[in-house]
Parts: sequence; structure tokens; C-alpha cells
Amino acid sequence: MIDAKSKKEKRFDPLVTVFWKDDYVMMIDQTKLPNRLSYIRCLDHNEVANAIKKMVIRGAPAIGVAAGFGLALTAVHSSAKSVNELRNELDIAFKVLQSSRPTAINLVWALQRIMKTSKESKSIDEVKKAVLNEALKMADEDIQTNRRLGATGAKILKDGDVIMTHCNAGSLATVTYGTALGVIRAAEESGKHIRVIATETRPVMQGSRLTAFELQHDGIDVSLIPDTAVAYTMSSRKIRYVIVGADRVLRTGHVFNKIGTYQVAIMANLYNIPFYVAAPLSTFDFENSQKNVIIEERPAEEVIRIGRKRIVPKGIKIFNPAFDITPPELIAGIITEKGILKPPFEINLNR
Amino acid sequence: MIDAKSKKEKRFDPLVTVFWKDDYVMMIDQTKLPNRLSYIRCLDHNEVANAIKKMVIRGAPAIGVAAGFGLALTAVHSSAKSVNELRNELDIAFKVLQSSRPTAINLVWALQRIMKTSKESKSIDEVKKAVLNEALKMADEDIQTNRRLGATGAKILKDGDVIMTHCNAGSLATVTYGTALGVIRAAEESGKHIRVIATETRPVMQGSRLTAFELQHDGIDVSLIPDTAVAYTMSSRKIRYVIVGADRVLRTGHVFNKIGTYQVAIMANLYNIPFYVAAPLSTFDFENSQKNVIIEERPAEEVIRIGRKRIVPKGIKIFNPAFDITPPELIAGIITEKGILKPPFEINLNR
Repeated sequence: MIDAKSKKEKRFDPLVTVFWKDDYVMMIDQTKLPNRLSYIRCLDHNEVANAIKKMVIRGAPAIGVAAGFGLALTAVHSSAKSVNELRNELDIAFKVLQSSRPTAINLVWALQRIMKTSKESKSIDEVKKAVLNEALKMADEDIQTNRRLGATGAKILKDGDVIMTHCNAGSLATVTYGTALGVIRAAEESGKHIRVIATETRPVMQGSRLTAFELQHDGIDVSLIPDTAVAYTMSSRKIRYVIVGADRVLRTGHVFNKIGTYQVAIMANLYNIPFYVAAPLSTFDFENSQKNVIIEERPAEEVIRIGRKRIVPKGIKIFNPAFDITPPELIAGIITEKGILKPPFEINLNR
Repeated sequence: MIDAKSKKEKRFDPLVTVFWKDDYVMMIDQTKLPNRLSYIRCLDHNEVANAIKKMVIRGAPAIGVAAGFGLALTAVHSSAKSVNELRNELDIAFKVLQSSRPTAINLVWALQRIMKTSKESKSIDEVKKAVLNEALKMADEDIQTNRRLGATGAKILKDGDVIMTHCNAGSLATVTYGTALGVIRAAEESGKHIRVIATETRPVMQGSRLTAFELQHDGIDVSLIPDTAVAYTMSSRKIRYVIVGADRVLRTGHVFNKIGTYQVAIMANLYNIPFYVAAPLSTFDFENSQKNVIIEERPAEEVIRIGRKRIVPKGIKIFNPAFDITPPELIAGIITEKGILKPPFEINLNR
């Protein structure tokens, strides 16, 4: 028997996905998971952009911080002779990093925030320091934000609840702790036992490779289902909530997230399972509308092969969109670090 | 330019999935697809049962015929000294084959039909001949049934239609020609150009490995999407119908089919895309209700590994149901060899 006190003392030591060490960027190589937990070191912004493109690192908050560190690499290792030269180098790095993935908003948000800081500094040394400090600050803020967001969301969870999640919105999608899985962690830390049902999340399988891996790492109860078994599982099991992350939340409450999120939301609504999105405010995009957000199409190879094994005949056409859009009417609430936003989102956002 | 005449002369030579040759059963080894088109020879009913269990052969009509050939193997190669001894051997083979997969109805239907024939014969030779002839007759009937079913369904399709299908209800799920894909073939043979969108169908990936393979084999236009992209594809593309197969159709119109079918039906209904089931009458089960049909749970290994590549951490719980149940209210019609059954199914079935 575990008493309430020892339960309350549960405290996780989750994976740290991306960090600054000895003037370089370290990140978990997520393409190697779940078979090997290994780290790569990025020496310049091109290597960071490449890691984002190839999904060595993914998850909207994590790639925001990684991109920030990418700018810091450019600044710290620059041998520019003038502030203007350094600013030019940063501009180039900005463009390379910004184009690494088009849909997640945090990436642009992080880069713009750091560029702004750099412009407020005058000397080469000041710019270098400002860029690095802002990147480090953002990494730290990400952790604090997730802990606050987690604590906020955890209040709606009860001991014994079964939560379905899609893709990975965990420590591996952030610096650490996670958004949707941060809510689970916070509930567990407050002494509640939560069971998680993770969807596999084809084609990149962030559910089986990442969510299952990181929850198991923290000793949290997790079961895995194929993406085809969502409706059947909802019909036969007692799922209390669905909680997912977000790559971008529009003013209207439309949520861009990993492909498959939308259909999980459709089915959750059919079964009256409240569908929650866990997203820090840095994920909100107050400027764009649905029409001018690019939905990234990823390479066909993600569907064609797993490891070296070909599972699709040669010459077959593939449609591989990376994201979809969940409309606000399917969303019960958006869990942020400042509270749970309830519909109508557009009106409540302005309060 | 292809003129109407040459279009009409299009005639496919689809794959033959299972056949009787030199007193043994030959079948395509579907576990090797799409990388290698190879055949295995089954020497006795145990090998046939094993092939069904391991999904070397799958698809309700195909495993019905294969099981029938399994009984034929027992009969033809028996060295029984009396009719009773032969009948005992057939009883054992019946039980082994019957238990190879629990959900598809055709399996039991085929076995019972052959056992009945065997009981009407008197001598050893007569029983042997009767069993083999009935099995051969059923294989031939399967082809004729699919061609009739295909022609019936093809009438609703128009030139240029885009059809979504789930799993594989094609030549590889039958002796040849297919049910859902038989409808597509018949439409193409009548000069219509059809485009097919196949879902990958995790975990066994019958969509990518089999449907894409056999449609490409016949030169039919096919694109593949991950199971997570169904709603997004429906929202952004012009899908005219969804057509799937069935493992069992109840009197009430409830359809047991590959896991994921139910959720595709939910989404099709949301987008007002008519959802059709293509099923020969041998797939109908007039006796059982939802409650006493077993939904097979398949081994976790199907989700854990692809080829040799492990994609799930060790020790993760897996829920891997092989089928789900689509309720009649989501089904626009059931295409059979005797016409298209329209709702209300229970009433129209009795007419």
C-alpha cells in the first residue's frame, strides 16, 4: 500500500530533449528511438535545421527551442568583424532555420523573438551574449510553462482516469516534461494514477516510438493501439478524456496538429469523450487564418519503408500530409499555462 | 486517345490467390508481398490451417476456399481403410481448420458445406471425390460470384470516380477478381476510369502491401494514404464512394470487417460520402447476433515489429483487435452477387 504522503512525493525525472552544453546544442536523436537513447551534437545552424527537417527532433515547442539554439550557435561561433556582418550571418541562419518545417508556429515565434533581442544590442559581444541568453531563457521558460500547464490540466483528471493521446506531446516534444503528457505527469505527481492509451501515429509512429518510450521511462501506465483501432477502443473501453498537443492554434480555435488528430476528435465527439488540446501560449497564432497556413507534405519514404523494409510496391503514389486541422466545435478546452480556455475560443481569447 | 471500343475490351488477368494443383493446394504467400510474389504448397490440412493463422492467406472468401481445399487434402491423401475412419479424419481436419480464425463466417460456411456433401456419400472413393469436387466447385463459384457482384456494383460508378477502400477486398482476398476491388475491376472493364485511394491498414498493412500491389498489377490507378489521413483526405479530395469488403454481415446489417472499417464509415458519413460494403451472400450470417461473434485479438508482435525492425519499446502493453463492427445506419448499401441490398437491411433481406 502506498500512502497519500509517499504518493504526493512522486516526482519525475523525464528525458531532456534538447540542451546547450559546452557552447554546442545537444539533442536526443529521436529517429533512433525506441531502440537506442542517443544524443547528437549540432555544430551550426545548418545541422540544427537538418535535424528539424529529418525529425531527429520534433514537437512544436522542442523545435522552437532547438531553432533558438541554432541562432545561438551562429552568434557564439561567429568570427564576424563588425556588428553588421554578424547581423547578416544571423539573418541567413534565421532563413535557413525558419524554412526547416512550415507548420509549427513556435519555430517562427522563437526565431523572431531572438532576432528582436539581437537588434536591441550594439556591439558584437553584446549581440552574441543577447542571442545566447535569450535562447537559454526560452529553454528554461519552456520547462516552467509546461509545469504550469501540466498543473492546470491535471486538475480535471481523477484518480484512475484513462486518457487517450495521439502522437507525442511529451518531454520529447518539448525541452522536458511535455504538454499533453505534462498534464499526465502533473496528475501522477499529485498522487493520481492515470492510464494512458497511445495511438501508434503512422507514418512516423511517434506514439509507439516516443510516447510509449517516455511514459515507460517515467513508470507511467501506457498501452498502445494501432490508429485503426481508435473508434473500436472508444466503443469498448472507458476513456475519460482525449488530450493532445498542438503545432499551431488559431484565434478561432482551429488546431493544427499531427495528421490523425482531427479524426480522433471526430470519434471522441461521437462517443462524448471530451477532447482537450494542451498548448502553451507560444503555440497560438493570432495573425493567420486557416487558408494561409501551409500543411506540410512529408516525403513518401516515410510511408514506403520502415527501417530498410519496403512495405509498399515500387511506383505507388503516396499522399503523406503531416498535419490536419481540428475545428473548434470538436474541442472541449485548450489547456494553457494560464488556465483552460473554454469555447467559444475566439470570444474568450479576447477577455 | 483510347476509343470506346478498345476501352470496353479491357479485360484483367488478376492474381489467383489459391488453387488446386497436382493434388495439393497452392497459394500466394501474402506475408512476402509486396516484395516478392511467391507461392507455397500446402500438403495437409494442418499446413492450410497454419497458413490461415499466420495470414499467408487472408480475406474471408479466400480463407473459406482454402479451408475447403484443406478438407480436400485430408480426403484425397487419406489411407483410411473404412468410410468411418475417413469421416473421423475429416472431423479432425474440420476442427483444426475451423479454429484457425474465429471472425470470418465463410470459413465455417465452406467447411460445413463440404462436410455435408461428404456425409451424403457412401464409399471411401465416393467421399474422397465428393469432398474434392465440392471444394473445386466452391473455388469456381467464388470467381463467378465475384464477377457478378462486381458487375452489380460497377453500375453505380461513373467514369472518373474516386473510390476509397480500406484493407484488401481484392483478388488477394478471394480466389481471384475480388469483392470491393472486383467492383472497381468491373467498372474498368466496362470502360470507366476509376481512381482508388487505399488506406495503409495497420497493423498488417493489407492496403499498402496487397491492395496497392494487386491494383498496380492490373494497371488500375491507386494512391496510398496512412490510416491517420482518412478524415483529412475526405475533407480535401473528391471521394465519390467508400467501398470495403466484409468478414461477416449479420441479419441486422452489422458488418464485421478489418479493424478501422468502422471509423472510415464514421468519417464517410460525416462527409456525406456513401459507404458501401461488397460482400457475397456466403458472408451473411443469419444466426448469430453481435454478442456471440468473437472479435479476434491478434498477436502484439504485429504492432511491435515490421520485418525485423522493432518500433515499440520492450514491455509495452498492446491492444490489437483484428476486426470492428460497422452499424447499419452508416451503410448506404451492401453489394452482393444478387443485387445491392439497401437499408433497412433486416427488412429488405427478408423480401
